[in-house]
Amino acid sequence: MELYTDEYFMREALKEAQKALDIGEVPVGAVVVAKNRIIARAHNQTEKLTDATAHAEMLAATSAANYLGSKYLTECTLYVTLEPCVMCGGALAWVQLGKLVYGASDIQRGYSLIKQQVLHPKTEVAKGVFANEAKALIDSFFKRIRE
Amino acid sequence: MELYTDEYFMREALKEAQKALDIGEVPVGAVVVAKNRIIARAHNQTEKLTDATAHAEMLAATSAANYLGSKYLTECTLYVTLEPCVMCGGALAWVQLGKLVYGASDIQRGYSLIKQQVLHPKTEVAKGVFANEAKALIDSFFKRIRE
Repeated sequence: MELYTDEYFMREALKEAQKALDIGEVPVGAVVVAKNRIIARAHNQTEKLTDATAHAEMLAATSAANYLGSKYLTECTLYVTLEPCVMCGGALAWVQLGKLVYGASDIQRGYSLIKQQVLHPKTEVAKGVFANEAKALIDSFFKRIRE
Repeated sequence: MELYTDEYFMREALKEAQKALDIGEVPVGAVVVAKNRIIARAHNQTEKLTDATAHAEMLAATSAANYLGSKYLTECTLYVTLEPCVMCGGALAWVQLGKLVYGASDIQRGYSLIKQQVLHPKTEVAKGVFANEAKALIDSFFKRIRE
């Protein structure tokens, strides 16, 4: 039995997204994994930090780099519940992320809408892991906003 | 006599870039201006912070938002010595920057290389202000690196 699957780590990212939802933030969560260990976890905190750039990926990547004492995350995998935006995609390029795994696609803001290369050319990408669960969290947030 | 010209504020951004150069960082500087007052200034600190995302624009935008207590910089102008990268362009979209003024174009990493809209559609853009001075700082950095 393989314990450290993409599903295992994405479940941790979903827990982060749930924390965001609980405090009224857009529910996106992320974890950074190195050698099967979670070295950083974060959720969206744009409201709490009054910072529109405080996305889960930005916070998790910065935290992971800090932990490793390295500007680069070439040996790391970042799990995030929603497809990164263009800003976050650009950030993940600068840190030379080893692998990106995301849940739901973001059909409005996702980096993959950009025709040119946004991520680092060496970054592996996998998507769709617990996409429905990730999307359900976001839908429930926006449903609550509209009510 | 107009005191608060684009040149005036870009000179302040150049001073920030010089500070970066003095400490061995890629020399890019930025200031954020609201109502003719500088409310944030920053220079690239990727080495010092061990954070590949610690670009002058990111730090200046976050600092300005913090100062204003607002996620949005719709009434602000950001002056930066070098054209923002895709990450920074995306960040400036999230903060809904009022106006962007940059010095030198970045023909390798600049956001304007992207065919689609990266900045917020309402962000005004001016460029080329003290472009030569901005580029000279960067050239001197990379010349030093190669020596």
